Amino acid sequence: MTEARVGGTVRIVGSGLLGASVGLRLRAHGVDVVVTDASRTAARLAVDYGAGREPGAADAPTLIVVAVPPDAVADVVAAELAAFPEATVTDVASVKSAPLAELAALGADLSRYVGSHPLAGRERGGPISARADLFLGRPWVVCTRDDLERSRVSLVEALALDLGAIPVEMDAQSHDEAVALVSHTPQLVSTLMARRLAGATDAALGLAGGGVRDVTRVASSDPALWVQILAANAPTVAEVLRAYRDDLDEVIAALENIDESGGRRAIAETLAGGNTGVARLPGKHGQDRRFASVVVLIDDRPGELGRLFTELGELGINIEDLRLEHSPGAQIGIAELAVVPESLQRTIEDLTARGWRIAG
Amino acid sequence: MTEARVGGTVRIVGSGLLGASVGLRLRAHGVDVVVTDASRTAARLAVDYGAGREPGAADAPTLIVVAVPPDAVADVVAAELAAFPEATVTDVASVKSAPLAELAALGADLSRYVGSHPLAGRERGGPISARADLFLGRPWVVCTRDDLERSRVSLVEALALDLGAIPVEMDAQSHDEAVALVSHTPQLVSTLMARRLAGATDAALGLAGGGVRDVTRVASSDPALWVQILAANAPTVAEVLRAYRDDLDEVIAALENIDESGGRRAIAETLAGGNTGVARLPGKHGQDRRFASVVVLIDDRPGELGRLFTELGELGINIEDLRLEHSPGAQIGIAELAVVPESLQRTIEDLTARGWRIAG
Repeated sequence: MTEARVGGTVRIVGSGLLGASVGLRLRAHGVDVVVTDASRTAARLAVDYGAGREPGAADAPTLIVVAVPPDAVADVVAAELAAFPEATVTDVASVKSAPLAELAALGADLSRYVGSHPLAGRERGGPISARADLFLGRPWVVCTRDDLERSRVSLVEALALDLGAIPVEMDAQSHDEAVALVSHTPQLVSTLMARRLAGATDAALGLAGGGVRDVTRVASSDPALWVQILAANAPTVAEVLRAYRDDLDEVIAALENIDESGGRRAIAETLAGGNTGVARLPGKHGQDRRFASVVVLIDDRPGELGRLFTELGELGINIEDLRLEHSPGAQIGIAELAVVPESLQRTIEDLTARGWRIAG
Repeated sequence: MTEARVGGTVRIVGSGLLGASVGLRLRAHGVDVVVTDASRTAARLAVDYGAGREPGAADAPTLIVVAVPPDAVADVVAAELAAFPEATVTDVASVKSAPLAELAALGADLSRYVGSHPLAGRERGGPISARADLFLGRPWVVCTRDDLERSRVSLVEALALDLGAIPVEMDAQSHDEAVALVSHTPQLVSTLMARRLAGATDAALGLAGGGVRDVTRVASSDPALWVQILAANAPTVAEVLRAYRDDLDEVIAALENIDESGGRRAIAETLAGGNTGVARLPGKHGQDRRFASVVVLIDDRPGELGRLFTELGELGINIEDLRLEHSPGAQIGIAELAVVPESLQRTIEDLTARGWRIAG
C-alpha cells in the first residue's frame, strides 16, 4: 500500500463504473471513502464491492467526486457544494463548459468547484473498461480557471495521481474543443458509417475486412450515454462536423467530376491530408518501427495459441507485441509477433524447426 | 505439396505484392508459373524471389493473372487477350465495372475475360500484407456474366482455391456497390476524420484514445493507389457518400437545435442506427461471447510479455484470443486474455498465485 496524496474523507456521489473505480483504487491506498448513489441498491452494491463505506452524519469530506450521468452533473455538484461548505467538489463528466455554465446559473459557490475528466476509455465499452485500474496511465483533464485557488486544483490533481492517471491542466473550453475533435466527432463519423451498413446485403457485408471494422468499432457505443455527451457539447461538435462536411462535399464533387481537370488531384490531396493527420496521433507500440515482425499461421482450434506461447517461452524469445487476426469462416488464424530486429532470424528458424508455419 | 486445381502454365503480369504472392503460392503447389512486369528489374526480382520463371517464346498459358495498378488493367488485359488467343485472362483489381467497360470499348474478346478481386487486406498496408499467404481464408470475388462460359469462371475459382481463398461469385456492378460500401467509403470517412486532426493542437491530440485511433487507422493508406481505386468506382462511391452526407446533415441540424423538440431524439436514433449497422458485420473472435476475459497488467519492459506467455503455457491455460493495449507514456501495458468461461476462475487464481496483477 502506498500512501495517498489525498487526505481526509473522499465522498463519491454516483456508484457507477467511474465512481466505483475511483473508490476501489482509493480504498487500496487506505483512504476513507464514502460512497453514495441516487439508487440505494447501487450504493449498497458498491459498498459490498469494497468501493467505500456508507455515509455517516458526521462526514466532513475534504474532496467530493461527482460521478453521475452528464445530464445530472450540475444539479448534483450544486447540491454537494451547498451540503458541504468546506469541501472541494469535482466531477468526471466528459464535457466541461456546459456544467460550469449551469452551475453559475444555479448560483453555486464556484470557488470550490474544479471540473475534471478522466480519459478512461469508458466510452469504448467492453470488458476492459470495468475495473479499478481504469485510470492507469490515462490522461485526466483538470479544468483550471483564473478565479480558482491553486490548492483546489492541486487536490484534484492529487486524486488523479492517486488513481495512477496523468493530470493535464486545461480550461473548460479548450477541453471541450479537444474532445469534440478526438472523441465526439470520431464517434459520430463511425456511427454514421455503421448506419450505412444497416441496409446492406449479406453478400456485401461478407466482403468486409479490417478497415471497415476499425472505422465502425466505436459505433457499438451506448446511445443513452452518448446522447447526453453530445448534447452537452453540441455547438462545439457541430462546428467540427461542419468542417468535416465541407471536406466531404469537396470529395463528393471531385468524385462526381472525376474525369475533369483537378478531380483526381483533389482526391489525392484529401488522401494525403489524411496521412498527415493520422501521423500526428501520439505513437503506439503496435506501430513501433523499433521492432521486426514475424507472422505465424495458427490452426483455428483450441490450445494452438497457448502452444505457441509456451514454445515462445521455451525458446526464450522475447515478444514485444502481438496482434491476432482471424478471417470469418477461415480455418486459420494469423499471429503477428513483434521482436527486436536482432532476434528476427533466430525466431523464424526456431519456430520453423518446431513445425510452425511462418508466412512471408 | 498438394496437387493444384489449376493446370498448365499460369502467366502473371505485374510482379508487385499481389502478383508475386500469387506466383509464390502456385509455385509451392508445383505449378509452372511465368512472371513478367513492365519493369524488367521488378520481374527479375520476383523470379529471384521464387514467384515464377521468366517468359519463353513457346509459352502457352492456360490462365493469365493481370496484377497491375487499376489504371492500367484494361490495356494490359486487352493486350494479353490478343497475345494469347486461347488463354483465360483474369485480373485482381479492386474495381470491376470500369475495366470491363473499357475492355468492351477496346473491342477485346470478353468471352475469355473473367474479372476477379481478392479481398486480401492489402489496402491496409503494414507488414501483414506482403506474403505468400496473403489470400488465406479471404473472400475472392469472381465476376460472373451471362455471356461467360462456365469453364472460364471455374478456372478462376480454381485459382482462388489453390491460393487458399474462398471464391464468391458476383456480377461486376454488385461487387462495385459492395466495395463502395464496405471498403471505399470507410476509407474516405477515415481519411476525412484524420484530415481534421492535421491542424489540431498537441494538447488536444494528447487526449486521443482508442476510438479515434480505430476510426483513423486506414487513413494511413497509400494515396497513389487509392486515388486509382476511388476514381475507377467514383459514381458508386459518390452515391454512398451522398447518403452518408444526408445523415450527417441531419446530425448537424439536430446538434444545432439540440434543445428543440426532437433534437435529442434524432441523435439517439442515429446512435442506435449505428449500433444496428455495426452488429451486422460478420463475427470476429475478439467480440466472441463464448469467451470470458481476464485482464493482466504488464510492466512495460522487455521480456514481460514473453514471461506471461511462458507461464500461461506452464499453467496449461488455453488462450482463445488476446488483445494488448498500451497507453502512450504509461509504464504499464494491459493484456486482455480470452478464455473459455469454465477456466476463468482458475486462470485468475493461477496467474495471481504467480504474482501477476489481474485487473478488475
